[in-house]
Amino acid sequence: MEAGIGARLRRIALLVQYDGTHYNGWQCQDIGKTVQAEIERALKILTRESVKTVASGRTDSGVHALGQVVHFDSGTGLKLDKICISLNGILPADIAVRNAYDVPEIFHSRYSAVEREYKYLIYNHPQRSPFMLYRAMWAKTYIDETRLNEAMSLLVGERDFASFCKKVSANEGTIRRLTSASAGRSGDTIEILIRGNAFLHNMIRIIVGTAVDLVQNERPPEDILEILEKRDRIFGGKTAPPYGLYLNRVIYDPPLESMKSAF
Amino acid sequence: MEAGIGARLRRIALLVQYDGTHYNGWQCQDIGKTVQAEIERALKILTRESVKTVASGRTDSGVHALGQVVHFDSGTGLKLDKICISLNGILPADIAVRNAYDVPEIFHSRYSAVEREYKYLIYNHPQRSPFMLYRAMWAKTYIDETRLNEAMSLLVGERDFASFCKKVSANEGTIRRLTSASAGRSGDTIEILIRGNAFLHNMIRIIVGTAVDLVQNERPPEDILEILEKRDRIFGGKTAPPYGLYLNRVIYDPPLESMKSAF
Repeated sequence: MEAGIGARLRRIALLVQYDGTHYNGWQCQDIGKTVQAEIERALKILTRESVKTVASGRTDSGVHALGQVVHFDSGTGLKLDKICISLNGILPADIAVRNAYDVPEIFHSRYSAVEREYKYLIYNHPQRSPFMLYRAMWAKTYIDETRLNEAMSLLVGERDFASFCKKVSANEGTIRRLTSASAGRSGDTIEILIRGNAFLHNMIRIIVGTAVDLVQNERPPEDILEILEKRDRIFGGKTAPPYGLYLNRVIYDPPLESMKSAF
Repeated sequence: MEAGIGARLRRIALLVQYDGTHYNGWQCQDIGKTVQAEIERALKILTRESVKTVASGRTDSGVHALGQVVHFDSGTGLKLDKICISLNGILPADIAVRNAYDVPEIFHSRYSAVEREYKYLIYNHPQRSPFMLYRAMWAKTYIDETRLNEAMSLLVGERDFASFCKKVSANEGTIRRLTSASAGRSGDTIEILIRGNAFLHNMIRIIVGTAVDLVQNERPPEDILEILEKRDRIFGGKTAPPYGLYLNRVIYDPPLESMKSAF
């Protein structure tokens, strides 16, 4: 049932987490389970409307989210906390709605986003860990995280990332702006944080794959700039696996945190 | 093929991690997959012997291990690092051999253990987390970890833990010695560490369930001693779920770390 003509619609944004292991990415597709389909199914049960959702960006198959933002329009009169709690009762356990916001009509989860932050986890230990399976890339040999951090930081700024882009998406231009990029270690886990206005397809996974290769082969961190300057994917390294990647945070102006929220 | 008569057997100890989610516990049983069966299957492929393994202790269905110790006798001439790497190549991805040790014949993973340390994780947040699913108990309402720590610390010493014991195992006596018990918070995760000479069946899960109940109901931490003194399971709280529990470490004297190891 669609919301009736003349029904007053409100725009609601959801803060969503998911373990992407068992999904064929965010976006509805013909083949396989998707996070979007699960959320739209839960919204239909809750609101009795055929709700269409829009996310801040797609995530590929196997990629996780800690702070995906999804908006939709609905005639529901339910309170925000009730929406969260009810959706979590309907959704599968590997998807969770962490918060809900009443946002103005002009808010758009994708187009209003000013920055996106991704996290990439590397489990750096000679033996694999059962607890990092599908949660982090496994690197057996030691990675010097200070050199990795150096390589990452050299990419900050407005640059042509053609060397770090899956070829097919190059039609939208390959210039993007990274506002920060860093790597740090906590025990056996290396955490890479990359923030920017927008990202090319597979860009973060290719950056991570390239930077890790470089450090493991004891090449100077500056070599990443040489690769960047080639502006050709052929010079980039391998694409790091999807299961190490997390959409960490989407930043809006005004911030989502300033909106009326469930919690 | 058994090791031939007169073949020189060596005793090897393995340091093993596993995600217990998909296993019916450690010990071989008629029903369901067990960690022991997987390890013995892998050892048979590697050594071509029908190897029988002994663990420091059983873990129940769904319980995890970060530092389970398992010993076996074998005629294999393989080097320790080769044993680790090969076993990890055969084992399913949710079980990992982290190290291997050549131990003396008198070493016994269970009887030589002087202390065992367990970790219990609680995810303490109003919304559930897809990433803590089957990795921690979920507690929606805030738990004051300083009060939880106080309750835990009151249990340290040699005591009759009958109130914190699944009834069936009471025939072995219910006096055990806890050498340390503490609780601390890191963000939304509460970590409980309990160390002792030995534990009764479900003892840690009942202690955790009872202590959490007590703190959430704003009862004074000292009340846990009243429950202890009743010496009857009926006065203990609920049994916390298995998936929050990790066998963290087994301590030997002389320590395993002093033996010849793979890594």
